[in-house]
Amino acid sequence: MSIKDFTPDLPTLLEAFELRLREVVRSEVEFVRLIEEDLVTAGGKRVRPRLVFLASNALGGVPYAMELALAVELLHSASLLHDDLVDDAETRRGKEAAFRKYGNAVSVLSGDYLLSRLMALLAQTGRMELVAMFAETARQLSEAEVLQFQVAALHDYSLENYERIIDGKTASVMRVACEGAAVLGDAPPAEREALARFGSFYGQAFQMRDDYLDLMGTAEVLGKPAGGDVREGKVTLITLRLLEAYPEEVGAIFKRRAAKPGDIARLQELAVRSGADLEVTEAIAARVDRAIAALRALPHSAYRDELEALARRELVRIK
Amino acid sequence: MSIKDFTPDLPTLLEAFELRLREVVRSEVEFVRLIEEDLVTAGGKRVRPRLVFLASNALGGVPYAMELALAVELLHSASLLHDDLVDDAETRRGKEAAFRKYGNAVSVLSGDYLLSRLMALLAQTGRMELVAMFAETARQLSEAEVLQFQVAALHDYSLENYERIIDGKTASVMRVACEGAAVLGDAPPAEREALARFGSFYGQAFQMRDDYLDLMGTAEVLGKPAGGDVREGKVTLITLRLLEAYPEEVGAIFKRRAAKPGDIARLQELAVRSGADLEVTEAIAARVDRAIAALRALPHSAYRDELEALARRELVRIK
Repeated sequence: MSIKDFTPDLPTLLEAFELRLREVVRSEVEFVRLIEEDLVTAGGKRVRPRLVFLASNALGGVPYAMELALAVELLHSASLLHDDLVDDAETRRGKEAAFRKYGNAVSVLSGDYLLSRLMALLAQTGRMELVAMFAETARQLSEAEVLQFQVAALHDYSLENYERIIDGKTASVMRVACEGAAVLGDAPPAEREALARFGSFYGQAFQMRDDYLDLMGTAEVLGKPAGGDVREGKVTLITLRLLEAYPEEVGAIFKRRAAKPGDIARLQELAVRSGADLEVTEAIAARVDRAIAALRALPHSAYRDELEALARRELVRIK
Repeated sequence: MSIKDFTPDLPTLLEAFELRLREVVRSEVEFVRLIEEDLVTAGGKRVRPRLVFLASNALGGVPYAMELALAVELLHSASLLHDDLVDDAETRRGKEAAFRKYGNAVSVLSGDYLLSRLMALLAQTGRMELVAMFAETARQLSEAEVLQFQVAALHDYSLENYERIIDGKTASVMRVACEGAAVLGDAPPAEREALARFGSFYGQAFQMRDDYLDLMGTAEVLGKPAGGDVREGKVTLITLRLLEAYPEEVGAIFKRRAAKPGDIARLQELAVRSGADLEVTEAIAARVDRAIAALRALPHSAYRDELEALARRELVRIK
């Protein structure tokens, strides 16, 4: 199958995506269905499928873009289901975390179910290189998630660990979304490399923005209280800087996991006063610039512009 | 690569398997390593790799048998890691369940790491049909595990559900171990079908024997107290029969999850008195017979004899 000569626009693709997703995850087991309804089909921003479709269209359309988009979203959804145990998150995509309703067990096993559907989709593409790429992405993702847990448990905070974590848990998935499209389209090496680089830098910027908003965002906009990462013992770029600048005070806040009222407000205040706030904004902007620069290797198109706009949004995103 | 003309014997293959397994699961993340040391490399009976090697050798040797054996064992190990949350098992392979030491989080994510390594191994074989088969197996496995949880939660006990569960969670993996070897060896359809059937029936017998021993085995031999399934609300063939024969008494024991001292001894007594004990033994023997009958389609060899002996062991296995 080739759809090289037929590239539907983004809204059409995303609409078709929702229908296919429901089909792909449908299970005969009732408890699996409950989880899927909650977490998979209830929405989300579909950032990763969007990346696949834009990358595909920027290359003039590639075969099996839909299967790739589904596979990438399933990897992300499975990781959320397995990560809820880690995060102990109160809310996820505005819904009560699934595991609170049905138990950790069903969440984990339903995540495994999604991974099995992902493998089936990859097999459908007939491209073993894509299977190998997903294997590598899944490895990076799981190792980064464990590393995040390890760092929190051992207080092993460092910029190096932070960068390994965001690269593994977010950038790697964004990368396979973009580079996977290039593989399916047999794109020339320079275009493949451009998309891989775009996915990596965009993914880093995306996670850094999420982490920034976790501390500096407002509860009303976020839909959850600020400071969740600190309460879980997770250090991000902004709190790393604060730990360096105010080792005693911020160290104490981390040690008690921001249990004292006013702890989070105090961290926000210190972030602004010390300039850590702006420093992180700059670090995000640097990634956005590199992501956009990478796109230059692709022929100009409306889709390339949309990829650029997606990256630029990380400079101003507030939720 | 073809090893058609070179088929090392089983002990040699299993020894090489242990070395390759350690290599394949090696991670740079310390917390991943802790889990692997505990659960993957610490042993176990290696029943599934043994099946792969025997099936492969019975076909005269197939390429990538080692990768298949590793993939099958990793699927099993990941499922144990994800199942510990479900089972709340006190012990697993004689070791303290990993999650009690390092938390559910690291167990789940390390299981995901094993699944990523499995995908990489399948990609190495270059056989997309094998990827599709593993996707289907992983689907059956995860759905069966969720179903088991659902049945326990809703008290939805039936022979049909029991058979779906043992087929999905055990027989499907044994089947892909055997049939996968046939795929790698491009075996004729009749031999492939023979191995698939052998794997299915052997897997069913294996799980039924495990379930039988869970109630009727002795704690000293099992290394854990009898009756674990009843305490988790899991119905097996023997307790299904007891629920039919003594709905009130056995129903009450299930309702309190065998919390009263003497509950398990009473179930054992009823199992013998009612003949449920022998009925299950017969049901296992019927599967063993069908497994062995399926092997007739393979050319006679010492390896086929070993497969037969493996199946026969389920008639008398006590741990």
